[in-house]
Amino acid sequence: MTKVAASLEEALIACGLKSGMVISFHHHLRNGDYVLNKVLEAVAKLGIGDLTVNASSIFDAHAPLLTHIKNGLVTGIETNYISPLVGRAISGGILKKPVIFRSHGTRPSDIETGKSPVDVAFIAAPSSDKQGNCSGKTGKSACGALGYAFADAMYAKKTVVVTDNLVEYPLRDFSISEIYVDHVAVVDAIGDPQGIVSGTTRMTRDPVALRIADLAARVISASGLLKDGFSFQTGAGGASLAVGRSIQRIMLEKGIKGSFALGGTTGYLVEMLEAGCFESILDVQCFDLKAVESLHLNPRHVEISASHYASPTAKSTAAQRLDAVVLGATQIDVDFNVNVHTDSNGYIIGGSGGHSDVAAGAKLAIVAAPLSRARLPIVVDRALTITTPGKTIDVLVTQCGVAVNPRQEELRQRLAESGLPLTDIEDLRKMAEGINGVPQKPKLGDRVVARVKYRDGAFIDEILQTLPDSRRL
Amino acid sequence: MTKVAASLEEALIACGLKSGMVISFHHHLRNGDYVLNKVLEAVAKLGIGDLTVNASSIFDAHAPLLTHIKNGLVTGIETNYISPLVGRAISGGILKKPVIFRSHGTRPSDIETGKSPVDVAFIAAPSSDKQGNCSGKTGKSACGALGYAFADAMYAKKTVVVTDNLVEYPLRDFSISEIYVDHVAVVDAIGDPQGIVSGTTRMTRDPVALRIADLAARVISASGLLKDGFSFQTGAGGASLAVGRSIQRIMLEKGIKGSFALGGTTGYLVEMLEAGCFESILDVQCFDLKAVESLHLNPRHVEISASHYASPTAKSTAAQRLDAVVLGATQIDVDFNVNVHTDSNGYIIGGSGGHSDVAAGAKLAIVAAPLSRARLPIVVDRALTITTPGKTIDVLVTQCGVAVNPRQEELRQRLAESGLPLTDIEDLRKMAEGINGVPQKPKLGDRVVARVKYRDGAFIDEILQTLPDSRRL
Repeated sequence: MTKVAASLEEALIACGLKSGMVISFHHHLRNGDYVLNKVLEAVAKLGIGDLTVNASSIFDAHAPLLTHIKNGLVTGIETNYISPLVGRAISGGILKKPVIFRSHGTRPSDIETGKSPVDVAFIAAPSSDKQGNCSGKTGKSACGALGYAFADAMYAKKTVVVTDNLVEYPLRDFSISEIYVDHVAVVDAIGDPQGIVSGTTRMTRDPVALRIADLAARVISASGLLKDGFSFQTGAGGASLAVGRSIQRIMLEKGIKGSFALGGTTGYLVEMLEAGCFESILDVQCFDLKAVESLHLNPRHVEISASHYASPTAKSTAAQRLDAVVLGATQIDVDFNVNVHTDSNGYIIGGSGGHSDVAAGAKLAIVAAPLSRARLPIVVDRALTITTPGKTIDVLVTQCGVAVNPRQEELRQRLAESGLPLTDIEDLRKMAEGINGVPQKPKLGDRVVARVKYRDGAFIDEILQTLPDSRRL
Repeated sequence: MTKVAASLEEALIACGLKSGMVISFHHHLRNGDYVLNKVLEAVAKLGIGDLTVNASSIFDAHAPLLTHIKNGLVTGIETNYISPLVGRAISGGILKKPVIFRSHGTRPSDIETGKSPVDVAFIAAPSSDKQGNCSGKTGKSACGALGYAFADAMYAKKTVVVTDNLVEYPLRDFSISEIYVDHVAVVDAIGDPQGIVSGTTRMTRDPVALRIADLAARVISASGLLKDGFSFQTGAGGASLAVGRSIQRIMLEKGIKGSFALGGTTGYLVEMLEAGCFESILDVQCFDLKAVESLHLNPRHVEISASHYASPTAKSTAAQRLDAVVLGATQIDVDFNVNVHTDSNGYIIGGSGGHSDVAAGAKLAIVAAPLSRARLPIVVDRALTITTPGKTIDVLVTQCGVAVNPRQEELRQRLAESGLPLTDIEDLRKMAEGINGVPQKPKLGDRVVARVKYRDGAFIDEILQTLPDSRRL
C-alpha cells in the first residue's frame, strides 16, 4: 500500500473531503505558494463547497481564493495574516462568515486543544519521501523551516503532503514524520522560488527609518538587557532589519555574546549568528535564501514548531525567553495598543502573525514606527483595530522621540539617564496630527467581517465591513 | 517562574502526584538507570502508594522496585520487557495486579490514543536546559536516542525532566521540546555509564552461533531482498550481531547499497553505515557508546520516536518498510509462535521489546536460535507464552537446518534453489527433543501474573504464577 496518490484530486477523494469541512495550509512558501490555489482548484472540480480555509497566512498570490469565495466554495477563513489584495476584498464583505484572526502562537494552540479542529491539512513540502517524511530544507522550492505546519500535520484528521521533490525513503532530515501523514501528492511545482523569498527583507536606506532604527537600538542598549545571554527577535521589515544591524554593531564592539535570536529569520540575522552575536537561531520560518541555507547547513540554526515559538498553552515557549523584540505598527494609540490588522481606512491589510505573541513574551517589546505614513498619522488617539494590547508594549520609538509605557517607570528612568530623547505618547500623537491633520474616522458598516482572537482565548476586537465611501483618500 | 525544582521531591509535589496514579519511565539508560529508583525513593518519602509504573523496560538495576512492590507503593506494572531478576519475583506473585506487557510500538500507541494514560512522565535526560529542552546525545550520562520517551513526554498530564547536566538555554539539538515539560529536576547522576552501554553487544565466538548467523545471512541473501535499497534490523545479541557481520561482508563484496538500518543500534551497525552499506540509520535507542557518538555526530544517523519505529496506529512506520529482520527466541513452537517473555520454567525473563512489531512489519522475519540452551529445547511443541504470533515469522534458522513457515511457499522454493539446508520445523522439534528429552511442562498456579497485549489491541496470551516447585532443574 502506497501513500503516493495518483493526483491531488485522488488524494482529496482518499481523504473523504466533504462540504462543510475545514482544510488547513501553512505559509512558508509565502507569496510564492502554489499549494493553496492548486488544492482549491482541485476541490472545485469535485463539486465540494462551504469549506473553511484555516491558513497560517494568506498572501496576494492567493487572490484566486476570492473567486472560490464568490462561488461559495470557501465560506470561512481562519488565519493569522491576510495581505492587502485579499484583505481589501474581505473587508468589502464578500465572505459569508467573519474571518477568525489568530496569532502564530494561538493558531497551533487552538488546533492542538481541539478548539479549531482541522479535517484535512495540506503540507507544502519542498522534499518528501513516499511515506511523507518531509522537510523544507532541500529541493527546488526549499523554504527552510516548516514551523507553522507541525500542529496541522499532527492534529488534522487527515494530512496530505504536497511535494514537487519526491526523494528516496527515508528522508533523513525530516521535520514532519510519516507517522502523521495519510497521503503524498506529487505536483510539478509547489511554489515560485522568487515569491518564496519575497522582497520584504531588504535593508532600508530611508533616513527616517534609519533614525528610528538607531534610536531603537539605543533603547535596547540602555535597557540593561544587552549583555551576555541576550536574546532578540526582529521583524523582516526594512526598519527592523536596520535595528538588527545597529544591535550587531554594538554587540561586536562590546564583545557581547548573546544567547539566541528568534526567527522568522533573514540573512541579516544569519550574519549575526555567524558573527558570533548569538549561540543559536530558533526558527519557525525563513524569509530568504540565506536563512534557508543556514537552517539546512548550520547546526546552530534550529527549526522549531509554532507551538515552541509562542503557543499560549505550551508548557513554555521560546518567546517567553526573549529579552527584546522590535515590532512594527500600522497604528499605535495613546494606550500603546497596536494595530497591524487594518489600515487607517479600515481595510484588512495584515494581521498579528507573531506580533501579539512576542509582545506578550519578551521582557522589552519595542514598537518602531514613523509618526506618519502616506500623510496618515500612525500615532493615534484610538487604534482602529487592536492587534496587540498596550499593556504588552513597553516602548514606542519614532523619529521624533521615544515614548515609554507609563507601566514601565523603571525602564523610563534608565532610558532618561542614557540621554535618549524621551517624550510622552500624547505629544507624539499631537505632533503626528500637527503634521498631517486629525484623521477622520472611516465610515464603516455594521457587519463584522473579521474577529481578532487574542492569546487568552477572548476576542480582543472585531473588524467592520468597509463601505464604498470608506476610503477617505 | 522557573521550571527547575529544588529537588526531585519538590518536582513530585509540584506535579500533584497522588496515590493511584500512573507514572512512566523509559529505558535508554538500560541497566545503568538510576532515575526509576530515585523517583520511587522520593515517592516513598511522600507517603504515596498504589502507583502503577509504566516503564518501557525494567532491568535488574531496578531491583529496588521489588521492595516498593512489597510495601504497596507500586501495585501495577505496564512494560515491554522485564529482565530476569525482577521478572522471577513477579512470576512468584508479589505484584497486586497482573503486569500488562506491550511491545515498543504498542506502548506509545496506547499512550497517544488514551488507552494507557500517564499522569506523570519522568524523562531521564543526559542534557537539558532549564526549560526542559532535552537530549540524550550529550552529557556524562549520554545514552543517544530518547525514542521511547517521546509519547510519554507529549501525552502525560505532567512531564518531569530529570537530568545531571543542566545546560544553557536553549539546548539546540533537543529531542524533546520544552513545550511538553512541566518541571526539571537536577540530580547528581541519572545513571551509571557502565550500565547504560550494557554488555549485550559483544560479537559471539560460539561456533554454533556463528553457524546459525552464517545460515541466516545466506537466507537473507537467497530471499532476493538483499539488493540495492535493502533495509535491515538485527538485535544486540551475539548471534544477531554475527548475522550483521555476514550481511556486511556480502553487501561489500557485491557492492550492494542498502537503504536504511533500523535500530536499536550497536557499534556494528554504525560500522555498516560508515562502510556505505546503508544510507542511514533510523534509531530509537542506542546500545553502546559508538552508537551514541554516531547519533550525535553523523547526520546520516537519525533519532526517531517509538511511534515512528513501530506504532500500530501511526499512519506509517519505519518497521513497515523493513526488508529483513533477525530475531531471537526463548522458545519457538511448531506453528512458529515465538516466546521471549518466559523461560522454560515459566519465569518472566524478558518481553517483546520490538520483537512482535518488526516481525509484523518486515517482509522477511527470521528467528535465529540454537536447537537448545542449557539442555532445554528451544524448538517446542507449544510455546509457553506467545510473544509473537507464528503468522508473522517467516523462517527459523538453527544450527541443524532452516525451517520455512508453510505460509511462505515461494520463499521456501527460493531458499531450496540456493542449496540451503531446509528442513521441517517438526523435524527440528524432534531433533531438539531427541538431544535433550521431551521437556516437562512446568507446574504453574492458576493466578495470572501478566497479560501480553499484541499490536491489534487484543491480549494474545497470559502468564501464570510460578509455584515453589515450578522449577524443574
